[in-house]
Amino acid sequence: RTYQGAPTGTDLECKGWRQEAAFRMLNNNLDPEVAEDPENLVVYGGTGRAARSWDAYDAILDELRELGDEETLLVQSGKPVGRFQTHERAPRVLIANSNLVGQWDDWEQFHELEAKGLIMYGQMTAGSWAYIGTQGIIQGTYETLAEVGRQHFPEQEGLRGTITVTAGLGGMSGAQPLAVTMNEGVCIAAEVDEERIDRRLETGYCMEKTDAVDEAIAMAEEAAREGEPRSIAVHVNAAKLFDAMRDRGFVPDVVTDQTAAHDELEGYYPAGYTVAEADALREDDPEAYVEESLDTMRRHVEGILAMQDAGAVAFEYGNNIRGQVNAHRNLEDAFDFPGFVPAYVRPLFCRGKGPFRWVALSGDEADIHRTDEAIRELFPEKAHLHRWIDLAQERVQFQGLPSRVCWLGYQAGDDPDGLTERARFALRINDLVAEGDISAPIVVTRDHLDAGSVASPNRETEAMKDGSDAIADWPILNALVNCAAGADIVSVHDGGGVGIGNSIHTNNHVVLDGTELAAEKARRVFTTDPGMGVLRHADAGYEDALEEAAQSDVHVPMEDQ
Amino acid sequence: RTYQGAPTGTDLECKGWRQEAAFRMLNNNLDPEVAEDPENLVVYGGTGRAARSWDAYDAILDELRELGDEETLLVQSGKPVGRFQTHERAPRVLIANSNLVGQWDDWEQFHELEAKGLIMYGQMTAGSWAYIGTQGIIQGTYETLAEVGRQHFPEQEGLRGTITVTAGLGGMSGAQPLAVTMNEGVCIAAEVDEERIDRRLETGYCMEKTDAVDEAIAMAEEAAREGEPRSIAVHVNAAKLFDAMRDRGFVPDVVTDQTAAHDELEGYYPAGYTVAEADALREDDPEAYVEESLDTMRRHVEGILAMQDAGAVAFEYGNNIRGQVNAHRNLEDAFDFPGFVPAYVRPLFCRGKGPFRWVALSGDEADIHRTDEAIRELFPEKAHLHRWIDLAQERVQFQGLPSRVCWLGYQAGDDPDGLTERARFALRINDLVAEGDISAPIVVTRDHLDAGSVASPNRETEAMKDGSDAIADWPILNALVNCAAGADIVSVHDGGGVGIGNSIHTNNHVVLDGTELAAEKARRVFTTDPGMGVLRHADAGYEDALEEAAQSDVHVPMEDQ
Ligand SMILES: NC(=O)c1ccc[n+]([C@@H]2O[C@H](COP(=O)([O-])OP(=O)(O)OC[C@H]3O[C@@H](n4cnc5c(N)ncnc54)[C@H](O)[C@@H]3O)[C@@H](O)[C@H]2O)c1
Ligand SMILES: NC(=O)c1ccc[n+]([C@@H]2O[C@H](COP(=O)([O-])OP(=O)(O)OC[C@H]3O[C@@H](n4cnc5c(N)ncnc54)[C@H](O)[C@@H]3O)[C@@H](O)[C@H]2O)c1
Repeated sequence: RTYQGAPTGTDLECKGWRQEAAFRMLNNNLDPEVAEDPENLVVYGGTGRAARSWDAYDAILDELRELGDEETLLVQSGKPVGRFQTHERAPRVLIANSNLVGQWDDWEQFHELEAKGLIMYGQMTAGSWAYIGTQGIIQGTYETLAEVGRQHFPEQEGLRGTITVTAGLGGMSGAQPLAVTMNEGVCIAAEVDEERIDRRLETGYCMEKTDAVDEAIAMAEEAAREGEPRSIAVHVNAAKLFDAMRDRGFVPDVVTDQTAAHDELEGYYPAGYTVAEADALREDDPEAYVEESLDTMRRHVEGILAMQDAGAVAFEYGNNIRGQVNAHRNLEDAFDFPGFVPAYVRPLFCRGKGPFRWVALSGDEADIHRTDEAIRELFPEKAHLHRWIDLAQERVQFQGLPSRVCWLGYQAGDDPDGLTERARFALRINDLVAEGDISAPIVVTRDHLDAGSVASPNRETEAMKDGSDAIADWPILNALVNCAAGADIVSVHDGGGVGIGNSIHTNNHVVLDGTELAAEKARRVFTTDPGMGVLRHADAGYEDALEEAAQSDVHVPMEDQ
Repeated sequence: RTYQGAPTGTDLECKGWRQEAAFRMLNNNLDPEVAEDPENLVVYGGTGRAARSWDAYDAILDELRELGDEETLLVQSGKPVGRFQTHERAPRVLIANSNLVGQWDDWEQFHELEAKGLIMYGQMTAGSWAYIGTQGIIQGTYETLAEVGRQHFPEQEGLRGTITVTAGLGGMSGAQPLAVTMNEGVCIAAEVDEERIDRRLETGYCMEKTDAVDEAIAMAEEAAREGEPRSIAVHVNAAKLFDAMRDRGFVPDVVTDQTAAHDELEGYYPAGYTVAEADALREDDPEAYVEESLDTMRRHVEGILAMQDAGAVAFEYGNNIRGQVNAHRNLEDAFDFPGFVPAYVRPLFCRGKGPFRWVALSGDEADIHRTDEAIRELFPEKAHLHRWIDLAQERVQFQGLPSRVCWLGYQAGDDPDGLTERARFALRINDLVAEGDISAPIVVTRDHLDAGSVASPNRETEAMKDGSDAIADWPILNALVNCAAGADIVSVHDGGGVGIGNSIHTNNHVVLDGTELAAEKARRVFTTDPGMGVLRHADAGYEDALEEAAQSDVHVPMEDQ
């Protein structure tokens, strides 16, 4: 089956824009420009699907075509299972994907049920029809590094004048040098595979390359001194790079790593081998490969820890290199440097900030450019948002329906009407649609990795202050309250990036079609949704969240307990 | 802390009846007449609580007092955590209790988090403020036996003229003889403990007692011949009763068992000992006790199987006696007789039927009697419902706020307006409240054990036709769609009767205050909620559900797949 992507323009296949938005978003998820393997309905992230089967896909589209403005469609793991009378202010589509009863909540049970055709892996944004391609990754990295700047170099503009050392220039990790330079900083990135380096240079994700560590350091120091953004790929193993820096007494400002260390056989390269040699070793003697690989990882982590001891800011970037070395090489102090969520993303979550995103249902790029302008107009004082919008316009290619990611939060304190950042933006866009400045409705959604939407003890809720990492009441309340507030699509998923049984998370969509109804929904949902982020972190005792609640007038029932 | 139960009458502590209903139901749950241990906030079922702590309880009441008609309160494991602007048609309270991420979803993690004060065990109706005392148990047993009658003795009125043999006259099991005679049948119940027998005789749950099996059989056969309801307790071990019946060539119509066989040490008595002797053995040599107990259980199950072979209808009544004998005595054919849910309750679930219940917020018993009349008026042809209402009036004592349980379902096929049984009833009650025939609003809710509200592979979803026992998408969709439909309270719980990690289930309340808004909510919720039961079972391939969908015009999207 070949597949064409979302319909565009202003002719509707459905009875209204709310239903049409669901129709187009599902199809956009399966756009060959967007999806990894659309023929198999796989959008991204292993087997993250948008529908359970092509029959189920067809049936969903039929249901959406017939769905009335006061009806709600139910989708169970990518299959439509019911349609009920509700009301205009209620959601049009409710989705539950991959959820299992706790004692059965593992890959084995999941695969058995999947083989019977009873369940589907929804990943995060795949099964909720909210995936928009790779721009989410760049912006997540950009925002994480921006927070590093705010926390450790508050006098600087972003990371200007600082040097960040990392490794890995692959699929996701390749976003790092661009994200550093977008934050005005200097990046040295070790990568063993020269082809990968060349790909990043070609696509503008990285500026320079060298084989010589000395040259890389010299270039970086010069750029940092001059306050110029610069990114330099070094063709070397990460462990060796850190050793070389230690020998030279060079200490960067920030160290991290995004080699695919979570997989010691397929994702990480041992030192002392060229890529070709290592690939041959992997083929010939995988056990020896794994031993070498873990030995290098240990050296690599020791390098990071040494840099941290010497004054660098260090964090793990979600690749589990700490866990690997701790478990397989008995390095007790591997966890002496923090994971990126507790260190940098959680302070944003405390203020309800997360990867908010929107899509132009028209298919017209001009509509997204108009929304970019709206961000600038609405938040004239928020230089950080402007920088991101400028950079995104300049450097991020559209895939499928034109769309934009922009981390917005609660932060109602600075608005005279007490509206949240997300609500202010959505209401402005809704007006622009009403006025015809934007040619068709905009649908607003977000990543499942958001402030108040996820329980995931290995990632988003790692090391919560009060130890509440595993409590899943929170995402369930998030889904319920967004449903009550009138989001047009609400979804609840098990699994996602960390796998079945390791997280519960939710999503929602609101369609801005220029009507008063859309304004009402937007005002409520974009208060409840980031509001859950503030409340969840306030309940866990985070000062930032309590401060945000006070500044933004969020009611915290038992605040003094 | 002493505790007084729910306020009654028509003066409100809250801003409206929807909030007041939540306020009174929470307090009713903790009425000393209703709750097992109100001082510790424990309502029933181990540690099933209504609020996390007395501070949280006070804070919930404060929140409810202040809650506006367009606001929604969020409760996380018995603690209020937020309050948001929503709208009139949305729920007033959203509750999530005891939910954990799958890989952490066990008692150990739960108890750790409970000790930190971060989570609460909500059981089923405790944490959702819907427990109404013991009448739920009687009616569940009554309905199960009614379904036994419908399936196996369709020519009879209920169980009239049939003999049911069971064992156990304890806390819950003691409801069996009454439930049999309520269904017009004859019951012989073995019980080793004469004190227990006497208690059932005193409270009218059982009619006669004897030490002699011959006498019991003779009395039962005579009553059955004459079509008279009769219940006879036999002071004998269950295993011995079955042996004696086999010796005499007596085969009853129905056999089951509700001794507490799930616990071989504390719940089950070995044959060959008086109660006093067995209690002494348990004390002196618990290991010997267990061996004797399991040996008796084996004999007991062999007795049931023999009766089944000889033509009796046999089923297990949720005490795991099959599992015990299968696991510890290697009896391979222990599972040759079915569990009660797949056998008798599931056919009801297929038609959206389950333990619907309502409570008179006035505190006035006359209001419940008026609702009883309404059932008779609305369903003049449903003799089964009439019988239950008559019996309940006669024999069920009120506890706390007056209330009634009555299994109602979807079954819209026989209504000219296509309304479900539940909706027809609720709309009629709402009218009676509007007209002043009922003195204050009625709140309608149900058990979490309901047609479309639970995933529980060891009980409610045991042995589903398609193998979908463990899929939890269904209860999540149930909660979301009831929220969309405007239920006034919506709750999602992990655990309940089968323990943490073994089930996910939901509840909802709708307040019938005589307004058009209440009518709208009732019409929708009492379609979506039983409708989920029909859809869930239709999706699993049950003929009854597909037939119900066809008769009642329930849209099943991929019916022909
Ligand atoms: N939010 C998050 O949690 C998050 C986000 C992005 C990536 N990640 C993690 O980051 C890792 C990388 O993801 P990816 O998609 O870029 O993987 P990838 O396999 O595409 O890229 C990894 C790169 O690292 C290089 N590499 C491996 N070992 C090396 C070594 N010792 N020295 C130098 N270079 C080495 C490889 O050649 C490859 O180019 C994964 O573990 C992923 O799970 C996590
Ligand atoms: N819906 C359900 O799944 C459901 C409902 C009700 C009860 N149950 C199960 O039913 C069982 C009984 O519950 P309960 O609350 O009545 O327990 P209980 O302990 O109060 O009563 C059990 C009774 O059985 C008697 N007994 C024990 N062994 C006997 C024997 N060999 N012969 C004769 N009598 C014997 C005891 O003396 C006692 O009176 C439990 O296992 C419970 O889990 C399940």
